[in-house]
Amino acid sequence: MFQNVQNLAREAGSLLSALQAARPLVQCVTNFVSMDLTANALLALGATPAMAAAPEEADEFAAHAGAIVCNIGTLSRDRIESLETAAAAARARGKPWVLDPVGVGATRFRAEAARALLNRKPALIRGNASEIMALSGIAGAGDLAGAQRGIDTADGSERAIGPAVALARALSCVVAATGPVDFVTDGQAVVRISAGSPMMARVTAMGCALSAAAGAFLAVARDPLPACVAAVGLFGLAGERAAIDAAGPASFRLDFIDRLYGLTPDDLEGAMLTRLETSTVKHA
Amino acid sequence: MFQNVQNLAREAGSLLSALQAARPLVQCVTNFVSMDLTANALLALGATPAMAAAPEEADEFAAHAGAIVCNIGTLSRDRIESLETAAAAARARGKPWVLDPVGVGATRFRAEAARALLNRKPALIRGNASEIMALSGIAGAGDLAGAQRGIDTADGSERAIGPAVALARALSCVVAATGPVDFVTDGQAVVRISAGSPMMARVTAMGCALSAAAGAFLAVARDPLPACVAAVGLFGLAGERAAIDAAGPASFRLDFIDRLYGLTPDDLEGAMLTRLETSTVKHA
Amino acid sequence: MFQNVQNLAREAGSLLSALQAARPLVQCVTNFVSMDLTANALLALGATPAMAAAPEEADEFAAHAGAIVCNIGTLSRDRIESLETAAAAARARGKPWVLDPVGVGATRFRAEAARALLNRKPALIRGNASEIMALSGIAGAGDLAGAQRGIDTADGSERAIGPAVALARALSCVVAATGPVDFVTDGQAVVRISAGSPMMARVTAMGCALSAAAGAFLAVARDPLPACVAAVGLFGLAGERAAIDAAGPASFRLDFIDRLYGLTPDDLEGAMLTRLETSTVKHA
Repeated sequence: MFQNVQNLAREAGSLLSALQAARPLVQCVTNFVSMDLTANALLALGATPAMAAAPEEADEFAAHAGAIVCNIGTLSRDRIESLETAAAAARARGKPWVLDPVGVGATRFRAEAARALLNRKPALIRGNASEIMALSGIAGAGDLAGAQRGIDTADGSERAIGPAVALARALSCVVAATGPVDFVTDGQAVVRISAGSPMMARVTAMGCALSAAAGAFLAVARDPLPACVAAVGLFGLAGERAAIDAAGPASFRLDFIDRLYGLTPDDLEGAMLTRLETSTVKHA
Repeated sequence: MFQNVQNLAREAGSLLSALQAARPLVQCVTNFVSMDLTANALLALGATPAMAAAPEEADEFAAHAGAIVCNIGTLSRDRIESLETAAAAARARGKPWVLDPVGVGATRFRAEAARALLNRKPALIRGNASEIMALSGIAGAGDLAGAQRGIDTADGSERAIGPAVALARALSCVVAATGPVDFVTDGQAVVRISAGSPMMARVTAMGCALSAAAGAFLAVARDPLPACVAAVGLFGLAGERAAIDAAGPASFRLDFIDRLYGLTPDDLEGAMLTRLETSTVKHA
Repeated sequence: MFQNVQNLAREAGSLLSALQAARPLVQCVTNFVSMDLTANALLALGATPAMAAAPEEADEFAAHAGAIVCNIGTLSRDRIESLETAAAAARARGKPWVLDPVGVGATRFRAEAARALLNRKPALIRGNASEIMALSGIAGAGDLAGAQRGIDTADGSERAIGPAVALARALSCVVAATGPVDFVTDGQAVVRISAGSPMMARVTAMGCALSAAAGAFLAVARDPLPACVAAVGLFGLAGERAAIDAAGPASFRLDFIDRLYGLTPDDLEGAMLTRLETSTVKHA
């Protein structure tokens, strides 16, 4: 069904309507750099953020949350306990959860934390190309993309398509590799989203906020593929529009949040009609 | 004295003058989501923020601070120790302290942390309606408002008046329940403040920043009731004005901080004359 | 060579070019209040921030980083371990590191943490006048400036010149004391930088972001003196320009980041020609 661009665009618009109506609670166990932007992006979208991370609260938040987001940035021993407990609570409560493997290729500490989290079966994984390639290797699903340098990558995301598909199949989840062009796959369909702006790479935590937004869409969706496409598409569209008059990254960031607030389901559906391409992976 | 709107409005203006002259140090043991907005709101107001939380530093900061703010958002075991120590140091040094019971109705962990903090005798408690209702129940002062969902609430704050009065009487402190309309009570007088903008609920940590601003006013006040009214009124007035031209929540937030910086004592006094109503609670 | 203003101005411009070309990874073990502004300032400048603090990751980040920044704000026992490990890793990997002694005069806890870090031999120390005076006393290099009040200081930075020179000589490093006027010294030359805006003191974490920016310049420089002058000068110039049309501290902050992004090496060189003064300290 979602190999058809028109269906996918329409579903993206419908999911944004549903999100704005339901105002789902999205619990984010996320890094300290991203908390302000992530919470404000969720509020702008119409969702309700909760940035609680204590293991003691995990079950109660999971009970009320529509989705849970686990982000391994600014990792620490305490944070690993929080992430593990939140992911386990999500599973126990039958709630979908998103893994954002920030900088997973940069250190063994992050690789080990991510490996343990993969056993908790995320519904969705979103990272940049380097992160998805590294994670695919960690999961034994594809080739490990050699040594990683830091968190961000300027490389094209195309090179992550193979590892993303392998990872999605190995874990039966949806995987998004985002960058100058974005790819979302469930292991069968691959959706290519051509939107966004280079200015997005000049603002910290945009990827983290996108993972949280994907959680908000997951909370109102049956199928994680269109939910993730809607989030990625909405961020790309807001980024395109915010870049038009931006004098620099701070005015871009401000207008980006205002656009997340102002874009309508019709805006999203209309834009996706010309920015999506779909293909199907041949079975090996 | 402060059952008279004119006196209360005049006192609000005077306290803003005093704050701008004294630049009081306000120590905030606060959650990680709110640190940027809270520190910038305090600086815009003319106060001096210190976001230190280490128990090892609590006594030295309490010695220099004009007021201390304890906020239970992003709670953890370590943070409970920081909050307890800061509140105890405030008491030992004779400094007023503010409790912001973020999400206190959401989890048992927060309820227990809040219960312990109440024993440290806050001068002021500020929360949304759900939080004040839950806290009143925890304190044994009023009815517990059933199960809570998350942190934020869209419900009217009127329903919190009864629990707020009960809480203020039980703890001999001032209680503010803020929302679309705001209420401040010392258990005898109830001040109703009609100001603000719905956009305030679309920006994270506005309530946390307000609790810190109330701390800044407490630092220069003899009576916590007008100090709290001044802070709530100033936030409402800045919010009203920032909403006029805001394209969305990020431009609103920017203009809100600029307004906190630009509003004068006369602006505050003048606006409060038309936005305050006072009443007196009959003794039971 | 850098006692000549023209040489110093030209070198500042060259270093900004080099930074924008190299996009160095700057690892920041920094306080929670400053993370958003610091990461966004580094991105706007053209550097690549990594805000990782786990001791388990210190060696791997130090291996890839061009410079490391250790900031003692929002200090805790865990954070001391992170700072110590990051500074040790920087030394072991031969990478320059920056110490930002936030509030070092305010508490014994910070004084002890700073004292231990000084043994790790920072390439650069940046603080306000009070912090530099307190640190010089802690290092046994000069007079301890009596009791400190909080974090920020409105006092002139001139009074910190003597302690800054003493500290630079005692530790064989560069020391910057920033404020209404900024001073940078390597213990021999003293560079005075007249730039900036009073509005910078109304935005939280501007000093923290400056220390991180100095790290980005250090990563591409052979000599820490012009690297620090370039960072301080760029911040001052961006501040001056952002203050022109700012309605308040939030619009100032936004435009400041946009200016960091937009200022060119030629802008920096040209401005420094009229804003720098140099002198040489007589040997005692």
